[in-house]
Amino acid sequence: MTLAIGVDVGGTKVAAGVVDEDGRIIAKLKRSTPAASPERTEQAIADAVTELLAHHRVEAIGLGAAGFVDSARATMLFAPNLAWRDEPLKERVEERLDREVVVENDANASAWAEARFGAARGYRDVMLVALGTGIGAGIIIGGELYRGRWGIAGEPGHVRVVPDGRLCGCGNRGCWEQYCSGNALVAEAREFARRTPGGAIRLLQLGEGAPEGISGPVITQAASEGDPAALRCFQIVGGWLGQGLADLAAVLDPACFVIGGGVSGAGELLLDPARTAFERALTGRGHRPLAEIKAAELGEDAGIVGAADLARECSQTAAFRRRRRRRRRLGRPALNPASRSYAARVWRSL
Amino acid sequence: MTLAIGVDVGGTKVAAGVVDEDGRIIAKLKRSTPAASPERTEQAIADAVTELLAHHRVEAIGLGAAGFVDSARATMLFAPNLAWRDEPLKERVEERLDREVVVENDANASAWAEARFGAARGYRDVMLVALGTGIGAGIIIGGELYRGRWGIAGEPGHVRVVPDGRLCGCGNRGCWEQYCSGNALVAEAREFARRTPGGAIRLLQLGEGAPEGISGPVITQAASEGDPAALRCFQIVGGWLGQGLADLAAVLDPACFVIGGGVSGAGELLLDPARTAFERALTGRGHRPLAEIKAAELGEDAGIVGAADLARECSQTAAFRRRRRRRRRLGRPALNPASRSYAARVWRSL
Repeated sequence: MTLAIGVDVGGTKVAAGVVDEDGRIIAKLKRSTPAASPERTEQAIADAVTELLAHHRVEAIGLGAAGFVDSARATMLFAPNLAWRDEPLKERVEERLDREVVVENDANASAWAEARFGAARGYRDVMLVALGTGIGAGIIIGGELYRGRWGIAGEPGHVRVVPDGRLCGCGNRGCWEQYCSGNALVAEAREFARRTPGGAIRLLQLGEGAPEGISGPVITQAASEGDPAALRCFQIVGGWLGQGLADLAAVLDPACFVIGGGVSGAGELLLDPARTAFERALTGRGHRPLAEIKAAELGEDAGIVGAADLARECSQTAAFRRRRRRRRRLGRPALNPASRSYAARVWRSL
Repeated sequence: MTLAIGVDVGGTKVAAGVVDEDGRIIAKLKRSTPAASPERTEQAIADAVTELLAHHRVEAIGLGAAGFVDSARATMLFAPNLAWRDEPLKERVEERLDREVVVENDANASAWAEARFGAARGYRDVMLVALGTGIGAGIIIGGELYRGRWGIAGEPGHVRVVPDGRLCGCGNRGCWEQYCSGNALVAEAREFARRTPGGAIRLLQLGEGAPEGISGPVITQAASEGDPAALRCFQIVGGWLGQGLADLAAVLDPACFVIGGGVSGAGELLLDPARTAFERALTGRGHRPLAEIKAAELGEDAGIVGAADLARECSQTAAFRRRRRRRRRLGRPALNPASRSYAARVWRSL
């Protein structure tokens, strides 16, 4: 069984793991990174991978990073919630490691992991929507990751849902992630506590007395205790989630939406209002099947697992192509591939 | 060279044509249909096809209809701008014709035609957005038509762009097509003429004195003469178009948008403000390539050409699969297909 390393690259930490072919993590470590320095983040990535390589023989190394990754899977073009702009991440990390790495959008990696090993196993048309600082998303079409023409597909967090709405880190106004994300949930609760402290007693209690102390887990705890203000915050964000999923269903008509990211830990507190809003907002409702809306299953490991598995796929597909070219050159009959590479699966699907 | 018949099924007319493998129409006819009667529309389709069949030997028959077509390409599930609900269109027309037909969404057919023979030749990731009564759209991914899990992908006209916005035929409020379509353009101009007749002198003149006389061609003519009110109408609708394309690019990242439908006849009057709005609204602008925004090339024939070509593809793919199964059963070596079917192209792309 071959192994691969996946690295989940965030703004404040790097998490790396050794992943087997069944998506199991057999070793894992974390490194915190100094906020907005791409260089020190790259060093932290290289250190983490080097440490794992000392104990494991791996076939491929994949990085999942929160930003727009180009179609060559090498450069971070732009990151709405990080300082990276046109950063040659692949090259920089390869220099430090002296090994090939593959760069992928972190939500693409998570979507792939959920489709291969998690909540969306068995579905061929899937969209992952991960609510955290912003919205990360990944699209699986026909069982394959869809990257778009320039690698930047799957950024619905920056669809405008309110003309002249709230300002977004991407520079626009009214982006979906300003209404529907972990940050939006926390902002809603804090603003309420500031405006109406008398109605936010439980939230403030759990937040150590100050609106700034109210965090995602605080709101989840208060809501699960039945606190009306906290429940209302989930209804608001869940409502925006369901509406946005209905809009995405109008464009993409997927079989299944997987909701990931930190907020999805709240489970039905979020998904229940989301499903209600989705069913109310879906165009053509009553005349079409409803896509499933499921909670992610792999939690914070999804990025690691997906980045590793995509890197393994990439390396197997490259190996398959090399073998095929060599056999053609030698005039041997075509391969009947047994590997799990993309090309192999397309071939078999014929 | 094999021929196929394509039929463009609208609310008030049926247009049918015999199409060759290069997308040329070699015979064409039209039938008007009595508004909202599915039954009489089906009879009109059958009559038109029968008339063409009397003079041409064709391999396949395809219908393109303005509504949500299911994944079996048989039933019209729902049509926001027509009276059809769960209508078994394929079965009904096949009964009348005693031949197999394939049903497709009309904008999917147009998108396919533009990608094969029109403005999007050579692009693999394309989105067609056709502005007419509403918005029709079709998505080409990796050179293939993308239909979604249940056949209903590509309905961005019903994405909500304004919370609590204008009422739409689909039953929701604030749908994109209420701000960006031929109908929206005409409504804008008429409302202006009602409110401010003194500013709409040229529009009213061309519209025979009454706001109700102002049509799409009237607005186009006034705008091309430099009339400020007409130009402003195009800027408003073009602005909504560009914003919506930026939102679609955030999700799908296509190489090329093709703008079709009646309004696209206005050319740069519409596309110029659309491109400006697109470039201003695109998330990550400055760090990513810009998708092209092109006018459709096939005009009102796109639906006929696309429906015919998709039906031909469908029939060739089915024939290929039958041949392959037979050869497998007989133990013969695998086919090296020479046809242009989907499976053949996937095969060759390996």
